[in-house]
Amino acid sequence: MSPTEAEPTFPDLRRFFAPQSVAYIGATEDLAKFGGRCVRELIDFGFAGEIYPVNPKRQEIFGLPCYAAIGDLPNIPDHVGIVLPASAIPEALAQCGRAGVPFATVFSAGFAETGTQEGRALQARIAATAREWGIRMMGPNCNGMVNFVDRVAMTSTAVIRGARRAAGDVAVASHSGGAGQVNVMWRAQQAGLEISYQVSCGNDADLDLLDYMAFMLEDQRTRVVLALAETISNGAKLRALAARAAALDKAIVMVKVGRSAAGSRAAASHTGAVTGADDVCSAALEQLGIVRVDDCHELYEAAMLLRRRQRIRGRRAAATSISGGNLVMVTDLGARIGIEWPPYAASTQQTLGALLPGFSAAANPTDLTAAAVGRADVFTQVCRVLHDDPNIDVVLPVLTFAPAADIRSLSAFAASAAKPLALLWTGKCLDDPTLTPERLVSEGHAVFRDAQAAMKALWVAMRHHEAWQKQASAPPPRRPQGVDADAARRMLAAADGPLDEQASKQLLGLYGLPLTGEQLARNANDALRIARAMGAPVALKILSPDILHKTEAGAIRLGVQGDDAVAAAFEEVMTAARTWRPDARIEGVLVQEMINGGEEVLLGISTDPVFGPVVTVGLGGIYVEVMKDVALHLAPLAHADAHAMLASLRSYPLLNGARGRALLDIEALADCIVRVSWLAADMHGVLAELDINPLRVLPRGQGVRVVDALAIPASREVAA
Amino acid sequence: MSPTEAEPTFPDLRRFFAPQSVAYIGATEDLAKFGGRCVRELIDFGFAGEIYPVNPKRQEIFGLPCYAAIGDLPNIPDHVGIVLPASAIPEALAQCGRAGVPFATVFSAGFAETGTQEGRALQARIAATAREWGIRMMGPNCNGMVNFVDRVAMTSTAVIRGARRAAGDVAVASHSGGAGQVNVMWRAQQAGLEISYQVSCGNDADLDLLDYMAFMLEDQRTRVVLALAETISNGAKLRALAARAAALDKAIVMVKVGRSAAGSRAAASHTGAVTGADDVCSAALEQLGIVRVDDCHELYEAAMLLRRRQRIRGRRAAATSISGGNLVMVTDLGARIGIEWPPYAASTQQTLGALLPGFSAAANPTDLTAAAVGRADVFTQVCRVLHDDPNIDVVLPVLTFAPAADIRSLSAFAASAAKPLALLWTGKCLDDPTLTPERLVSEGHAVFRDAQAAMKALWVAMRHHEAWQKQASAPPPRRPQGVDADAARRMLAAADGPLDEQASKQLLGLYGLPLTGEQLARNANDALRIARAMGAPVALKILSPDILHKTEAGAIRLGVQGDDAVAAAFEEVMTAARTWRPDARIEGVLVQEMINGGEEVLLGISTDPVFGPVVTVGLGGIYVEVMKDVALHLAPLAHADAHAMLASLRSYPLLNGARGRALLDIEALADCIVRVSWLAADMHGVLAELDINPLRVLPRGQGVRVVDALAIPASREVAA
Repeated sequence: MSPTEAEPTFPDLRRFFAPQSVAYIGATEDLAKFGGRCVRELIDFGFAGEIYPVNPKRQEIFGLPCYAAIGDLPNIPDHVGIVLPASAIPEALAQCGRAGVPFATVFSAGFAETGTQEGRALQARIAATAREWGIRMMGPNCNGMVNFVDRVAMTSTAVIRGARRAAGDVAVASHSGGAGQVNVMWRAQQAGLEISYQVSCGNDADLDLLDYMAFMLEDQRTRVVLALAETISNGAKLRALAARAAALDKAIVMVKVGRSAAGSRAAASHTGAVTGADDVCSAALEQLGIVRVDDCHELYEAAMLLRRRQRIRGRRAAATSISGGNLVMVTDLGARIGIEWPPYAASTQQTLGALLPGFSAAANPTDLTAAAVGRADVFTQVCRVLHDDPNIDVVLPVLTFAPAADIRSLSAFAASAAKPLALLWTGKCLDDPTLTPERLVSEGHAVFRDAQAAMKALWVAMRHHEAWQKQASAPPPRRPQGVDADAARRMLAAADGPLDEQASKQLLGLYGLPLTGEQLARNANDALRIARAMGAPVALKILSPDILHKTEAGAIRLGVQGDDAVAAAFEEVMTAARTWRPDARIEGVLVQEMINGGEEVLLGISTDPVFGPVVTVGLGGIYVEVMKDVALHLAPLAHADAHAMLASLRSYPLLNGARGRALLDIEALADCIVRVSWLAADMHGVLAELDINPLRVLPRGQGVRVVDALAIPASREVAA
Repeated sequence: MSPTEAEPTFPDLRRFFAPQSVAYIGATEDLAKFGGRCVRELIDFGFAGEIYPVNPKRQEIFGLPCYAAIGDLPNIPDHVGIVLPASAIPEALAQCGRAGVPFATVFSAGFAETGTQEGRALQARIAATAREWGIRMMGPNCNGMVNFVDRVAMTSTAVIRGARRAAGDVAVASHSGGAGQVNVMWRAQQAGLEISYQVSCGNDADLDLLDYMAFMLEDQRTRVVLALAETISNGAKLRALAARAAALDKAIVMVKVGRSAAGSRAAASHTGAVTGADDVCSAALEQLGIVRVDDCHELYEAAMLLRRRQRIRGRRAAATSISGGNLVMVTDLGARIGIEWPPYAASTQQTLGALLPGFSAAANPTDLTAAAVGRADVFTQVCRVLHDDPNIDVVLPVLTFAPAADIRSLSAFAASAAKPLALLWTGKCLDDPTLTPERLVSEGHAVFRDAQAAMKALWVAMRHHEAWQKQASAPPPRRPQGVDADAARRMLAAADGPLDEQASKQLLGLYGLPLTGEQLARNANDALRIARAMGAPVALKILSPDILHKTEAGAIRLGVQGDDAVAAAFEEVMTAARTWRPDARIEGVLVQEMINGGEEVLLGISTDPVFGPVVTVGLGGIYVEVMKDVALHLAPLAHADAHAMLASLRSYPLLNGARGRALLDIEALADCIVRVSWLAADMHGVLAELDINPLRVLPRGQGVRVVDALAIPASREVAA
């Protein structure tokens, strides 16, 4: 994911999703069997192309001529579905390959998902077979795809049976079958949305979730891609996908499961230990502008707003209702997640006053009270006034039970309004049973049933716009001045293990980080001379490539002053080191200037297997260790990103001069974060982890100092 | 809310909810008017008693004889509804009073909810009129009540129209009309639940929300009371209500709105400033066993489990499905809120293995995979095995699209099972359109549509059981030994303003809190003598009733050692105090032993207008100020409560010996919390706020010391 890597490309999946002809290996008429249901669904869904059942035991299936083998078909099918026992898949794929089939979907289970060595090996084998023959393959262990645009269903699911649904503007991609097809696709349709494409892609042995999402994004009618992901295959691909979404002005919303499974990884550095895989994923999604939500219903609820042409251009919402209780609910829940309910402009207040004589306070939210019941159109008029307020980005009308005339008046306004309206409708229409929330949604409106759902969807749309704006306007990270990447790479390549403190600092120096003054003392006399020259209290620390954690070894003394004390400290540190690890290679004792004042910060690098180098920052000691108060960002990053990371810390007030404290040098700290992020990006593959712990942040204008550091090169196998 | 106050009692509302006769002042036949709709709903709802419309302009309304005034009625009605302009209400109530009417509901708006002085005054007047005549009154500005048990509807709402609904086991109480009647009651009915009673009680000028809830709790068929509260009238009443709920083994679940409105209050002490009204409410609800949720749907979703006879007796859940994606969703979301998914017992794993040959891992959650599709009854059999596991408290079967036979087999088992089953059903029945989630709910099952909703409802039920268990088993708080309440009361009564540090500590000493050694020095010689006797570094602090915040005034010196330093510090402190506030009354300088080591804690008392005295504890300085890491509890409390408060702090590891730190004297700290809580409870009305800041907590076995303290007596007006 280094910026120097080649931009990932995505395969052309047009014939995969819209084949002219489909063959099914393992076809049958038995609907109790997967292969039977798949063929039946394809026919019933209205597929207009050729269907070739393949089964050596049958002449005909569902009235279609059946073939003994792929090689017997009259044409080369665009897409072959395979429903055979797992062990028969390699040969079936090879047959497809020999026939020149471009796309295959392997539905069968019995591969890596079993958790067995055999399963994993079989999966690797079919992936290799597909590669060998140039077949692009979905699955195994999947439930295929549905294309509502061209009426193609290569899947076994009851979800698509029944009345034919129109093709829509929302696409759904998931690893799982049930959750993706039922919880997201079917429920979205029940709520009045329509789908363009859907995949349940299983184990991703060849094509992966991001490939299908890329196809969906490029589709003209699709406005929103909803993803329910169990894994992310590749950070660079996700980044490229997010960039395309921004360029096309489309939205991706994602549930990424596996939060609780994201255990801590073995890590040599402190940074590695406090940086969980799921936290990295969250940080990555956020910075790529992919809003992460928690449950399936939040996916399609978010789509209600994101599919619309009107964007929510800020966090300022206005709500109005005849139900005061509902207004308190929404403003409470909204405020908790950062939605603002600002006062109206003076002109709005005046207009509201004229519209509602005797109405005491034209406040936000605007409680019309039961007094407005039966006053035709007053509700829509109020919404129009709120919509026109320059302080307001989105209007939230709240309905409980309402007459059709009111609802229709409101929906007519919403359809033509310049800013989005999000309707919270908790009840039903009083006088027209066909006028339902689902019907309004199918007409293009955003309609929510619960306050929480409405607020979450607003929040997602607001966050999406903010991320899009940032991607459109923020300058890309720029390599800072005074960086010697070649020298750094040479240092790391030459290392045969963790760098000691002095070497780690030297590496940081190559990226322009400000270091503490220090010199290596080989004996007590050296130490005396160095300390005298520094002319102030000093720190003495053992320097050994075999002692990474000096405090644990007791081989560190702080605030040492005076000749006797320095000499004694030298001997104590040497003794402690020899006691701690008698065979340690000892280079000597670092005599270091003491840096006092300000706050200690942990700044580090770890390497995520999916997203690559990650920068972590947090206030030192207790804040990181006990309060888990850290911010993460993929490397490299820009100054604005560094400032945003710092501002996101709960402990940020400690840097920012809160409660009479000194304002610290946040600018210098941000510069360090940027430099470290470039070190991380440039050294990807040769540097595994890095701790600056602590980095001391001094009062404003006095900069920062690297007090201690530990760099861990990537192991040879990884680097190779 | 002091333990010495008389137990609150609740009015007998049987005739209010189940009147034999109802009169409506302001009745009309015009359904565009509130008074018309109210009478119509009462008739249409099937009320079997007498209905007396009162309107001097009409002879008959909806075929019923109409009366000119309440005094003209043939009988005294049990309950009178009043729908008149606000200004006419006092006279109407007086008429009711003269006629001997026991209960009235004032629907009209135009009272305190307007936010005007006139509105508040008018509300006070009608409350006084009701009191004067002994009428118990609902409202004003309300939408009345519905009694599904006896078929009484005194309300104007379309929500209850249509097919007659059975009386159920869930009651709904809310201040608001729309949100309570639509978002909670109607939506609960749509989801398959049935309601016993519902109120939308408005401004609570006389009877309040808690009174109606008390009636609902005592009702035999009602198992769960759902409350949507905008205010809590009285902490003592809520406590009494919660105690009745526990005694009756029934549940209360509450949405309490106004979180974001809960601004900071003006407070002289640090404790007061960090203790928000909404935080107090949350803490109070939690300790009273009333589970607080966030949105209306969470109320009725929680009721699905809470109404059932089977309790969830622990946090250990098991889930199973053919949809692996759904299992990852629920376990992820569950784990995030504290639901556990433990491994199964060995016997369970064996039985599962026999039931599912070739099934590799009998893990929790249990993914049956599509391989189990079509194997009749295997799903229910697996649920039965999980149910029988001794490690499991609740079973969560997850269905997407399923055949009726499977669903019926499962529901039959759930009906007879000893432990609760909570069904997550995200799709529909494949072959019987009448077999819906709502139908299963109406049969008594707990059925959820979304993973998040299911997990939240499980969590509420688990929390409810834990609270109930605690109330059943935990000993009540016991007054500690060595407390002199009378002397403390005398001290506070004699004070004419905040107590200075010495007096504040003296107050704490009367409750047995361990104080730092200290003596008052009136001049530098005193200070020298005292410091020498202490024989260690000392602190010098100004003592003045006019300087509450010594650090701000610069009138404090720490770690002073040696005669010269002590003498100099004395003069500096005196000078700083005189400079800070030239007219300050200065008593002298406290010379105090320095307490080092351990951690600083803020321990304090504030007084909540609803819940009375509240104890707040948090780790000192930054943790309280910046990280807002505090725990709250109503006073008094038991040792176990104090330990639970400490354990709830994010910074608790700092006390608990985390990361190689010393284990601190948590037992002594808990004892202090208990003592302070009794001081708070005993001095309610005479003590407004108290800070111990810091309380220094020393390593285990060395106790704690009050280093600084500030007590603020209640102002005379409040105390009177």
